Amino acid sequence: MKNICLILEYVGTNYCGFQRQKNGVTIQEILEEAILEVTGESCTTYPSGRTDAGVHAFGQVVNFFTSSNIPSSKFKIVLNQKLPSDIRVRESFEVQENFHSRKSAKSKTYIYKIYTGTQFSVFDSKRCLYCKYELDENKMNYASSLFVGTHDFSSFMASNSSVKSTIRTIFNAGFKRDGDYLIFEITGNGFLYNMVRIIVGTLIEVGRGKLTKEDVLELLKGNNRRMAGKTVSPDGLYLKEVKYY
Amino acid sequence: MKNICLILEYVGTNYCGFQRQKNGVTIQEILEEAILEVTGESCTTYPSGRTDAGVHAFGQVVNFFTSSNIPSSKFKIVLNQKLPSDIRVRESFEVQENFHSRKSAKSKTYIYKIYTGTQFSVFDSKRCLYCKYELDENKMNYASSLFVGTHDFSSFMASNSSVKSTIRTIFNAGFKRDGDYLIFEITGNGFLYNMVRIIVGTLIEVGRGKLTKEDVLELLKGNNRRMAGKTVSPDGLYLKEVKYY
Repeated sequence: MKNICLILEYVGTNYCGFQRQKNGVTIQEILEEAILEVTGESCTTYPSGRTDAGVHAFGQVVNFFTSSNIPSSKFKIVLNQKLPSDIRVRESFEVQENFHSRKSAKSKTYIYKIYTGTQFSVFDSKRCLYCKYELDENKMNYASSLFVGTHDFSSFMASNSSVKSTIRTIFNAGFKRDGDYLIFEITGNGFLYNMVRIIVGTLIEVGRGKLTKEDVLELLKGNNRRMAGKTVSPDGLYLKEVKYY
Repeated sequence: MKNICLILEYVGTNYCGFQRQKNGVTIQEILEEAILEVTGESCTTYPSGRTDAGVHAFGQVVNFFTSSNIPSSKFKIVLNQKLPSDIRVRESFEVQENFHSRKSAKSKTYIYKIYTGTQFSVFDSKRCLYCKYELDENKMNYASSLFVGTHDFSSFMASNSSVKSTIRTIFNAGFKRDGDYLIFEITGNGFLYNMVRIIVGTLIEVGRGKLTKEDVLELLKGNNRRMAGKTVSPDGLYLKEVKYY
């Protein structure tokens, strides 16, 4: 059996997230069907992490085991022939037997796109958050920097989730201005459920002047979900990259 | 009765074109339902022209008559509350009684987006043509200029269409390079069915060296649809603007 790794790009809009589920079409289901078509084998694909309904990816990483003799680099071509145009394999290659897309991951980077102009284009619909408020970007950037480091992120987790530990380490976080867009980028060793979307919701409150940097420091002491900002829409969220070193 | 004019932006991907039809959801149907909801009146909307299934618009122009007392500029707001996020009213205003979006139009501008890089993004899927061939842009730009002027465009019309006259005047046509994208823009007093898509298909053949500028001149003498290029995908086509002066 070979362990094949795929780098995937997808538009999440038409899917109920990555992970297979009963009530709706998921990326995992479409991908596993494509693998079945080309290899003749049923398989399970292991992603670096689930992405929620509507969340996009530039570089989701997935691995699966196969006894097919399709050359590893050819999976890109044969799978793309079967996949719909909103899911693409960017790269395919063989990895060591013990490689696991989620467990082996060292860092993940997410991007969150916010449109701050006055004329929100239909072409940005479902791909961007439209923020109508005036935002103080300096305050937002300063507050972003407070997330860097190792913290208890229990204030930034969907309230219905259960995990062993709510401690995560953030390596980088900040905004870049690109014309009418404000692009948030965050890299960490892992993220809790809805964590990026709650962090962005909180930083928007900081930009609006509804929360202060002191509030953010308070939130980073843990377990105060109600004080943090809203969980912003999945539309603006992109899994950019997963690193294994 | 007031004659209300709307400037519309839409992503054509999820619609069977502008014009109402039995077998599929159209932009006209969605728009007229929204107008009915806000005015309580059934109405017919008159577009500057149909756009085909999958074709997009930055500035489609539509007018309709209403006895509603909603202020003209407010239609933008109330209709956008009812419309799906891939159809937006950009502007709404009252026009003279005899204004007709199609009949009063003096010129229309279309854009056609071609991606010529090596990594076609899922986010460009259905919004751009992916051209894998190496293209000679100088040849394409020169050939574009040959379309300017008044010609018989019968070679550049879907073979099953019937019109009174196949004579049209093109005011401007040319390509602009934008990174990995090649953007064709064409302005004319009117366009035959599939005309822009056949012109682009022909110019791609010129760029590939399969047709010459002499072939284009020959095609512009009329009635040789088979010699012209293919009708390229609607995905890359955008109705940019309609002018009335």
